[in-house]
Amino acid sequence: MSDFFMNISVSLDGYVAGPNPTMENPLGEGGEQLHEWALGTRAWRASHGYEGGAEGPDNGLMQEHVDRPGATIMGREMFGGGPGPWGDDPWKGWWGDEPPFRHDVFVLTHHEREPLVLGQTTFTFVTDGIGSALSQARESAGGKDVALAGGGEVGQQYLAAGLLDELEIHLVPILLGGGAPLFGTVGNAAPGLELDRVLESPTGVTHLRYRVKKPAAA
Amino acid sequence: MSDFFMNISVSLDGYVAGPNPTMENPLGEGGEQLHEWALGTRAWRASHGYEGGAEGPDNGLMQEHVDRPGATIMGREMFGGGPGPWGDDPWKGWWGDEPPFRHDVFVLTHHEREPLVLGQTTFTFVTDGIGSALSQARESAGGKDVALAGGGEVGQQYLAAGLLDELEIHLVPILLGGGAPLFGTVGNAAPGLELDRVLESPTGVTHLRYRVKKPAAA
Repeated sequence: MSDFFMNISVSLDGYVAGPNPTMENPLGEGGEQLHEWALGTRAWRASHGYEGGAEGPDNGLMQEHVDRPGATIMGREMFGGGPGPWGDDPWKGWWGDEPPFRHDVFVLTHHEREPLVLGQTTFTFVTDGIGSALSQARESAGGKDVALAGGGEVGQQYLAAGLLDELEIHLVPILLGGGAPLFGTVGNAAPGLELDRVLESPTGVTHLRYRVKKPAAA
Repeated sequence: MSDFFMNISVSLDGYVAGPNPTMENPLGEGGEQLHEWALGTRAWRASHGYEGGAEGPDNGLMQEHVDRPGATIMGREMFGGGPGPWGDDPWKGWWGDEPPFRHDVFVLTHHEREPLVLGQTTFTFVTDGIGSALSQARESAGGKDVALAGGGEVGQQYLAAGLLDELEIHLVPILLGGGAPLFGTVGNAAPGLELDRVLESPTGVTHLRYRVKKPAAA
């Protein structure tokens, strides 16, 4: 069976978005820093219709993220549009007329809605739970892997249910001090859950060393 | 000036100890898993008076941790002994008659106490704050670096005060679900604080990929 994987950018203190998100700033205060590494790569830019961008290891990883999935699942908060039902002028997501997915995207929600076709991407709104979304996504992916695009809360639900196969974290060396946590209390919900580091390090432990740039005032 | 550095083992969800610590299990539920990588190394075992142990990169790093500091600072909770003053039969730490430090250790506390000499280690109890402890430790270290041994709360105080020079995290692929957080809200207390990855990766971002071992019940 194909793999169901999540890759997500996380601050060193464990947040996938900063505090106080708004419609204008859905990533919260400081949250845009989580994605700077990705937005500069050639693969990200190409998938969004732009030329240029950086080559190198980050770009190779991003190209894999673009190529690997045959379908994507995301939470309602990541799809956006604020609280409540969809209204007469329904929200169409953050990605314009040609979203970068170019395959079926399944959006978890409590509000029914007809599928939304934008360019080569079809958004299907799933109201009967995370298991149903995964079944539909696997069928749509036709043997390719399924990506979980986020956010953190949906990731916790899939982890706790034992449905996620692979987790890839882009650990960004910033402290947000608050916001949306990647893990929350999922370690309690899934006490048998263990993680095997795929690359490097026989013990599975990753050693990270940082120099602290002190605030000018200090 | 010599460097003031902290190295600490942290769960993937950001805890330096698990939930519900007790005198019998000061690392909290599951917390002992944080240190398994270190306890198996030859360098750790030698510093604690044991023979044998694993070679390799983890051991090289541990040897550096043993050799680098000329003095150590730790919080009262890490020194241990439970709440309250020291009593008639004062607590002597977790480390027996020959603690592995073999230099001056400065313990942050609110309770005055005479210095405690055990083998080649002298514990000095500092009641006038984190700045005083650092000054005393730097003087004692005689040009060598100063280590902050933990715990997380003391690390947050030094980070927020802009006094820490280097932070080294041993990220262990487990989820504890709760306990003592390494960072807490320190990102808010020190909004100008930035971290520079010392090794690898031009963007400073660390990419970690894990396979999820599912609970047997899932």
